[in-house]
Amino acid sequence: MDLHVMDLYIKSLIKEAGHIIRNSFVTELIIEAKSDANDLVTNMDKEIEQFFITRIRRDFPGHRVFGEEGLGDVIEDLEGMVWLLDPIDGTMNFIHQKSNFAISLGVYEDGVGKLGYIYDVVNDNLYHAVEGEGAYINDERLAPLTETSLDKSIVGINATWVTPNRYIRHEDSIRLIRDVRGTRSYGSAALELAFLATGRIDAYISMRLSPWDIAGGIIIAREVGAIATNFSGEPANLLKQDTFIAANPSVHSKILNEYIHLK
Amino acid sequence: MDLHVMDLYIKSLIKEAGHIIRNSFVTELIIEAKSDANDLVTNMDKEIEQFFITRIRRDFPGHRVFGEEGLGDVIEDLEGMVWLLDPIDGTMNFIHQKSNFAISLGVYEDGVGKLGYIYDVVNDNLYHAVEGEGAYINDERLAPLTETSLDKSIVGINATWVTPNRYIRHEDSIRLIRDVRGTRSYGSAALELAFLATGRIDAYISMRLSPWDIAGGIIIAREVGAIATNFSGEPANLLKQDTFIAANPSVHSKILNEYIHLK
Repeated sequence: MDLHVMDLYIKSLIKEAGHIIRNSFVTELIIEAKSDANDLVTNMDKEIEQFFITRIRRDFPGHRVFGEEGLGDVIEDLEGMVWLLDPIDGTMNFIHQKSNFAISLGVYEDGVGKLGYIYDVVNDNLYHAVEGEGAYINDERLAPLTETSLDKSIVGINATWVTPNRYIRHEDSIRLIRDVRGTRSYGSAALELAFLATGRIDAYISMRLSPWDIAGGIIIAREVGAIATNFSGEPANLLKQDTFIAANPSVHSKILNEYIHLK
Repeated sequence: MDLHVMDLYIKSLIKEAGHIIRNSFVTELIIEAKSDANDLVTNMDKEIEQFFITRIRRDFPGHRVFGEEGLGDVIEDLEGMVWLLDPIDGTMNFIHQKSNFAISLGVYEDGVGKLGYIYDVVNDNLYHAVEGEGAYINDERLAPLTETSLDKSIVGINATWVTPNRYIRHEDSIRLIRDVRGTRSYGSAALELAFLATGRIDAYISMRLSPWDIAGGIIIAREVGAIATNFSGEPANLLKQDTFIAANPSVHSKILNEYIHLK
């Protein structure tokens, strides 16, 4: 399978999905609670995931799909071609803001990231990358990340993680947010990875992300030099929920070693 | 002075200033430290403030200007016509992200907010309001805020304020972020007020804001029903730096009374 042909196909597919989502804003959403009030799912999530799966199964037989809504395959390894899809990353923003959400997609071959996409649907900005060929926003190539330091860094981290929690020592998170230039929280892992890739933020930290949240973004971010791992410093987990930090290479290990201590 | 004539004039002026700012991204910024590393000022801040002041003095003699950069008048009362201007609200975002900043302007007559503007320069979105005539984003009228509850609310609050600080009891802020649906932090008071007015967030809280940060936004937010006060429940302070909360009327007093306790 030629990656460039797939790339063109996927860009077209994502734009079509984005069109469906934007159209949905004129119709009413039927919202149902999934696991709790903070984990909302809409009909649109499922509709978009099904849209992708139908096309992928028709045009890429043999490929497997690992999607947030669970309408695809049961994935326990990354052998062969696997599409990791979050049809709407940032569901709370989607419902509440009708903006600041994204379609996130990563295509992996035997566990190696080949094609990455983050589509900011409302602003019609498509971040994308083919392995080894650089990352782009729309038609513009993203510059490699430049050297920085912690005191000049803006970090994407939600306020929750600087309060007592069961994952990390919050005293160290508090030190972190005091030592950096500033913090932001946008409510979409995929968009925060896109912002990391464009240098708008210098690090993004979360305690629990699923493979489909990060699969597209880490391929894009890697192309500009970012490093993505779990809190043990291992490659980001693409099979199950895990801790996650992606950052400018100048600050990745410093944040991980000096400011994040797992309980 | 006819407010509608002023409104047309100001919209044109703001768009012209936005054009200057967007053009500046192709030239290098000369950054200088103002008070500390977190309070950066660029030549562009001053250039834009001077641009406004020159026009206002020429076309509105007798009006006074209260601007962040201090190039306007010394303001100790709000008598007559006063323009409260932040040429670039969200300076850190301006420098670091080249997005997520805004021109913020409020025009007050004898202390009463008459005209409010927040211009998201990069996305070319102008939020605006004439007193008593509703609020708009570009040509689209914003809907009045609808009733909500705390557990369904998204709150704009920076992580700093849920850690030990000298302004409020952080234990109560921690309770707040646990009781709401989610928190966000965008790094521009003006844009967070615009997001409040569009219902993207339901409350915005900050410990220290200056009059020019909020003057335009509170006029816009008020037109859709939002309430803006300091932490003592008094009207937002337009003469000096103060605490600030603006929120959907369903949650304003609940947040203030049950979750914010000044030290």
